[in-house]
Amino acid sequence: MNYNISILGGGSWGTAVSKLLSENNHNVKIWFRNEKKAEIVKKTRENKHYLPDIKIPEEVYITSDIKEAVEGAEIIVLAVPTQEIRGLITGNIELFKKDAVLVNLAKGLEKDTLYRISQVCEELLPENRFVVLSGPSHAEEVALEMPTTVVAASLDEEAAKMVQDIFMSDYFRVYINTDIIGVEIGGALKNVIALAVGISDGLGFGDNTKAAIINRGIHEIAKLAEKMGADRLTFLGLSGIGDLVVTCTSEHSRNRRAGILLGKGYTKEEAAEEVGMVVEGIITTHAAYQMAKKSEVEMPIVNELYAVLYSDHKAEDAVDRLMKRNKKHEQH
Amino acid sequence: MNYNISILGGGSWGTAVSKLLSENNHNVKIWFRNEKKAEIVKKTRENKHYLPDIKIPEEVYITSDIKEAVEGAEIIVLAVPTQEIRGLITGNIELFKKDAVLVNLAKGLEKDTLYRISQVCEELLPENRFVVLSGPSHAEEVALEMPTTVVAASLDEEAAKMVQDIFMSDYFRVYINTDIIGVEIGGALKNVIALAVGISDGLGFGDNTKAAIINRGIHEIAKLAEKMGADRLTFLGLSGIGDLVVTCTSEHSRNRRAGILLGKGYTKEEAAEEVGMVVEGIITTHAAYQMAKKSEVEMPIVNELYAVLYSDHKAEDAVDRLMKRNKKHEQH
Repeated sequence: MNYNISILGGGSWGTAVSKLLSENNHNVKIWFRNEKKAEIVKKTRENKHYLPDIKIPEEVYITSDIKEAVEGAEIIVLAVPTQEIRGLITGNIELFKKDAVLVNLAKGLEKDTLYRISQVCEELLPENRFVVLSGPSHAEEVALEMPTTVVAASLDEEAAKMVQDIFMSDYFRVYINTDIIGVEIGGALKNVIALAVGISDGLGFGDNTKAAIINRGIHEIAKLAEKMGADRLTFLGLSGIGDLVVTCTSEHSRNRRAGILLGKGYTKEEAAEEVGMVVEGIITTHAAYQMAKKSEVEMPIVNELYAVLYSDHKAEDAVDRLMKRNKKHEQH
Repeated sequence: MNYNISILGGGSWGTAVSKLLSENNHNVKIWFRNEKKAEIVKKTRENKHYLPDIKIPEEVYITSDIKEAVEGAEIIVLAVPTQEIRGLITGNIELFKKDAVLVNLAKGLEKDTLYRISQVCEELLPENRFVVLSGPSHAEEVALEMPTTVVAASLDEEAAKMVQDIFMSDYFRVYINTDIIGVEIGGALKNVIALAVGISDGLGFGDNTKAAIINRGIHEIAKLAEKMGADRLTFLGLSGIGDLVVTCTSEHSRNRRAGILLGKGYTKEEAAEEVGMVVEGIITTHAAYQMAKKSEVEMPIVNELYAVLYSDHKAEDAVDRLMKRNKKHEQH
């Protein structure tokens, strides 16, 4: 079946998804916030800044008019950064038809509310069905048609299956899951761990230490999420360790790069300036710290990272304290 | 408390552990099979071939006389390759006192029986308590005192706690677990996934595909292990994804290197010759394939890998078939 799909946001991920969905024979419109940019991409069929050397199919309709983009859409794909989602929806709320299914691609928590994106949408558009698409998927590699697996999660299993049908292709394999809390928390908090892994690398530690942080990190995130209603096994899945492994081993991760600088003694401001972009993990560490306190979940790595970022503790002392904690059972 | 500990096997891991345990103030003897080698290491206090540039403490007693090594031992550490364990024990069975605790460091399954090492020991030394130590731990990094985390697993929780007490240090953190099946299967089958990840790299695929294989690979191993009585959550732990991540991202992994060659079109014989050492993953794939059939567990990655290794299927077709499987729920 073919659907009318509107993609809101012309970053690398939105652009790669427009290509994928168009090749799957759906009617795809993509909205760019910037009018001039929309014109250039329309003319060149290339999103040079975000996804160079990839041809956007002629069938993809490019516009900077959001009303035109959303009109008649059965599926609305949210492909803007986390912190922009609330503004985008509230500013255009009359355009969102109640029967359109929302598919969110952003990973993160809303800064002020600590909301997951599904909670933001639930608040603003309570009648729309919501699906989050998450997992280890660099946009560049999807655009190059490299085999990729992701998970479509929703409280509404039928909506998740619909998204699975729409997105699945020879190189893009979609699994479904109904544990939306687990999938969203995993996607958001992986950046905290990437930051910690970077610090370990910056301090000169090796693979053993990196594996320890990835492993114990996902353990404490899973504990927190479980307290919030998630299934711990979700963290064994694509949106959990799958995504985390890519983030923590990739040279491209901003969060990991910022961590390396922190490990070398930079302050968080210096590290962020050097990386030159928003380091989400720094914000998310703050959020995770607050959530852990509120939920009364022991999160030793988050606590130490928080102390390094927000109380000027030394990174090497943090590692030392983590290693000297009480003896534990692996899963308690 | 101080223990009398005998380490059987002077490879890199046995040697690193002798240093660790001696620094923890235990009485440590290490046994080298080769008399001449024992003499050299005794004189130079360095295991030049397996662990260069690391000083073995003067307190470590080095011998090639196994009777002398095992005499009075409260803890016997098995640090020889998997396939040599049965021979080592049966050849010296009268030396193993019933009250000595066995600690196994080897990862793998016995080739002919498909036994886990705990099953081999159970058969030969049914009265001895058995603990396996597993997790992401390159010997070289432990010797350099880089922060490392591992798990000590035993059906006997007291024995696991004893090993935790004995091994734990400022840079070596030990967790306990009683799911010995999960820990042993994870350690053994990770090499199968490392091989598959190598093939993906050899075919020129990127991070998305690597993450997919790691993730769906651990999923099918966990399913198999669960059928055998393990706890799926163990695979979220150090002996599961922890170890797997290190193996699949490390340049040093023989299995991954062999996989890269297979992806480039080498046969398994050519790949093994080029790597120049035993590629355990090739043997273990055969074992996993048989176990899956016997247990009636669907293991698509193992099946495709088996077909590439043992029926000359093309690697690129295998990836294609994996991507085109029926639509699934992530955890079913």
